[in-house]
Amino acid sequence: MANEMGITVKKEENMPEWYSQVVVKSELADYSVVRGCAVIRPLGYSLWQSIVDYFNQRLNKLNVQNAYFPLFIPESFFHREAQHVEGFAPEVAWISTKSDNEERLAIRPTSETIMYDSYSKWIRSHRDLPLRINQWANIVRWEISDVKIFLRSREFLWQEGHCVYSTEKECEKETKMMLKEYAKMSEELLAIPAITGIKSKKETFPGAIRTYTFESFMPDGKALQSGTSHNLGQGFAKAFNISFHGEDGEEHTPWQSSWGFSTRLLGALVMVHGDDKGLVLPPKMAPIKAVIVPIAQDKSPEVMKKAKEIHKKLKKFNAHLDDRADKSPGFKFNEWELKGVPLRIELGPKDLEKQSCVVVSRFNGQKEIVPLNDLVAFVDKKLKQIQKEMLEKARKKVEERKTKATTYDELKNAIEEKKLVLAHHCGNKECEEQIKTDTGGATTRCRPTGEDKPEPNSKCVCCGEKAKYKIYFAKNY
Amino acid sequence: MANEMGITVKKEENMPEWYSQVVVKSELADYSVVRGCAVIRPLGYSLWQSIVDYFNQRLNKLNVQNAYFPLFIPESFFHREAQHVEGFAPEVAWISTKSDNEERLAIRPTSETIMYDSYSKWIRSHRDLPLRINQWANIVRWEISDVKIFLRSREFLWQEGHCVYSTEKECEKETKMMLKEYAKMSEELLAIPAITGIKSKKETFPGAIRTYTFESFMPDGKALQSGTSHNLGQGFAKAFNISFHGEDGEEHTPWQSSWGFSTRLLGALVMVHGDDKGLVLPPKMAPIKAVIVPIAQDKSPEVMKKAKEIHKKLKKFNAHLDDRADKSPGFKFNEWELKGVPLRIELGPKDLEKQSCVVVSRFNGQKEIVPLNDLVAFVDKKLKQIQKEMLEKARKKVEERKTKATTYDELKNAIEEKKLVLAHHCGNKECEEQIKTDTGGATTRCRPTGEDKPEPNSKCVCCGEKAKYKIYFAKNY
Repeated sequence: MANEMGITVKKEENMPEWYSQVVVKSELADYSVVRGCAVIRPLGYSLWQSIVDYFNQRLNKLNVQNAYFPLFIPESFFHREAQHVEGFAPEVAWISTKSDNEERLAIRPTSETIMYDSYSKWIRSHRDLPLRINQWANIVRWEISDVKIFLRSREFLWQEGHCVYSTEKECEKETKMMLKEYAKMSEELLAIPAITGIKSKKETFPGAIRTYTFESFMPDGKALQSGTSHNLGQGFAKAFNISFHGEDGEEHTPWQSSWGFSTRLLGALVMVHGDDKGLVLPPKMAPIKAVIVPIAQDKSPEVMKKAKEIHKKLKKFNAHLDDRADKSPGFKFNEWELKGVPLRIELGPKDLEKQSCVVVSRFNGQKEIVPLNDLVAFVDKKLKQIQKEMLEKARKKVEERKTKATTYDELKNAIEEKKLVLAHHCGNKECEEQIKTDTGGATTRCRPTGEDKPEPNSKCVCCGEKAKYKIYFAKNY
Repeated sequence: MANEMGITVKKEENMPEWYSQVVVKSELADYSVVRGCAVIRPLGYSLWQSIVDYFNQRLNKLNVQNAYFPLFIPESFFHREAQHVEGFAPEVAWISTKSDNEERLAIRPTSETIMYDSYSKWIRSHRDLPLRINQWANIVRWEISDVKIFLRSREFLWQEGHCVYSTEKECEKETKMMLKEYAKMSEELLAIPAITGIKSKKETFPGAIRTYTFESFMPDGKALQSGTSHNLGQGFAKAFNISFHGEDGEEHTPWQSSWGFSTRLLGALVMVHGDDKGLVLPPKMAPIKAVIVPIAQDKSPEVMKKAKEIHKKLKKFNAHLDDRADKSPGFKFNEWELKGVPLRIELGPKDLEKQSCVVVSRFNGQKEIVPLNDLVAFVDKKLKQIQKEMLEKARKKVEERKTKATTYDELKNAIEEKKLVLAHHCGNKECEEQIKTDTGGATTRCRPTGEDKPEPNSKCVCCGEKAKYKIYFAKNY
């Protein structure tokens, strides 16, 4: 039983074990008896809820509406789009319970097919477009049996947006817009720098003509694909008979996009910000933004009285007053550090004499003495500052890991050194495969937005053929 | 293709067909190609979201935390609680995809077993109790193949709360409290009268010692079980080895409750309030609370200008300005009536001359001329009034359908007349079965709260044995 409270390994020394301990001991999530599945505990779910709430507000602004489609997908639907079936076949779980004459049903690994069947009924005229629908749902991909909570599991939660447009231009424009939304959310809410760009052909979503991605870079030198936005072209529309009556009186095939992110973001959150004491939550994500720990509470009724007063005043930060009589202040400090609460407010008899308290920032350990009268304004300002500094700190770490490789040896060495490596590439799938083999697992992550144009006369870092673009390489989750 | 806009049958004449037309044509939901499943469209999902938002606020107040558990349940888990397996066996869908040595997995028909396995790990001490967790999830029950959207389908959305307590008293108290919460939500938010009480032994949840229910009564004379709260006793705790170290230093078995409601509530909403023109939404549920329809908009730029002004002023009611140039006001009236928007605001050149507008209430058709300067205050007041009157109207209808039966013939006749019938009963399962057969389907609904005490020396309405309680009978969904 790993029931001791503190984290017993260092993040730098054994990140997989550190990650697992932080997730479980902070009570973010837990392993489940069901192979490949995890339980999202209340702390973890509240973080997911923060993301859901933030994103629902954005969706509302962007005229995207939420809906819900069936969990089950008829087998024949997968076969309608050739690349789609090939991409997803190994990952699909099937239902054995069925009546005679009923087609075999899969549990959704993604919902393009089941949604577009409905779309073909709903879309008649150009007036029905653009159609912008999002779904919050659970998703099952069966290939995984060794669960890594949030990062790799047979079931996870996600959102998937599915839009339909009259024109290619509008489709491409909004496909890119959604990627920008994702990057904005990652940086503003999660304080995680987003590396955005286009996927190589090899890494493009099965059935899409172009996949935009935002990647996060983890402290162990691996990239995490954190959200993708696909321009699906007209392939699915043709496969599912979606057409619309245009203003010109003719029938047309529309253009489609789909885009999604998942509970995987919580894995990135833990890895990017966490430290040897446990979780570190950005203030905007934290369900409890400050915890008040009274010192010598049993000996000083004045301290308890003032702590309760402070608690009331800090209500809008969802502050928590930890007045447990059977735990020492030290125990409480450790526990709330483990759970990543952004601010700890200590109040003892000596502080009270001076009409002040001690405020400790979780993310950098900074201690500040704050007059009680200034506390509300201080907390407000401090939380904003922390949110900003956490992103800056994370960004600095990523920038330090970015490098460029002009020769194949440079590329291999840089991967060895756990860098995020920008290099010229020919765009060839087999060549990507070769690099993966030679580097022990590095894959192309993305052609970075605005920086992917090849230098004149440049050659592929691996095969020496004419370079098509510059692209990031890294190992990945 | 049932693509014509209006509802073509009357609610009183053919309620099943009316229901199906309202649900589909108002774009609340749609049938799916997957047998037994439905698609919840944006309007339907926004109603569900209203319920989710309302209830999450209540959960927060009641110290219940949201979490998420796996979709899959190992077969052996069902067998641990004998009544539970018997109750759910016919409804379970199984996964065929599995590795060697892996146990067969079901898709959750309810989550007691999978959650309590985790609970047994998390609960150690009396300090861990009460544990109050809720899950928003999709649920699969396979027996159904003839879908009735929201009311009966293979997949639906719900919440399930699962709490653990140190004492029987606390458990029973909170089991009843949750039923009160449900009734409050039904009446305050959905404007649907809740008939609350205890289920008979026969209708008790498999594995529970006592089931509390709130039933809604539909205009076609059928009851709808709309939410239940179960006192699970100690059975599951024993089956899943949940125990806690008490203050007395001894190990104890805790008490448990579970409680849930589902998207079924949306079916009740349609049936209780809808009319021959379509949906009628209570203001608190409606995503759009008022629609503004300009009259002669193409001829009068002043009308359009003022309509936009009004639109801005009514932003907090999420008002919608229907300024489509290619649709007539009459077409728009019909469409928004079909979609159940509580208030319609008509503004034409003549209204503008008088600096007023016409406000029409969807639920009773009342037209009122309102000075433009008073509009915001009027809308605010009117919406509150409508919310109240919709509940009163619905309550009156239910009260008219309530009756009592002292003889078996009276009971049978009253069921024939589509009444909700209170009668004495012996509590015997076989006797309930007999009544169901003799009445063509009537079942016990609940022993009404505070009114179930039998009269002195009263006999069972069917078998003539000593009566145990008074209980409602009705046919049901």
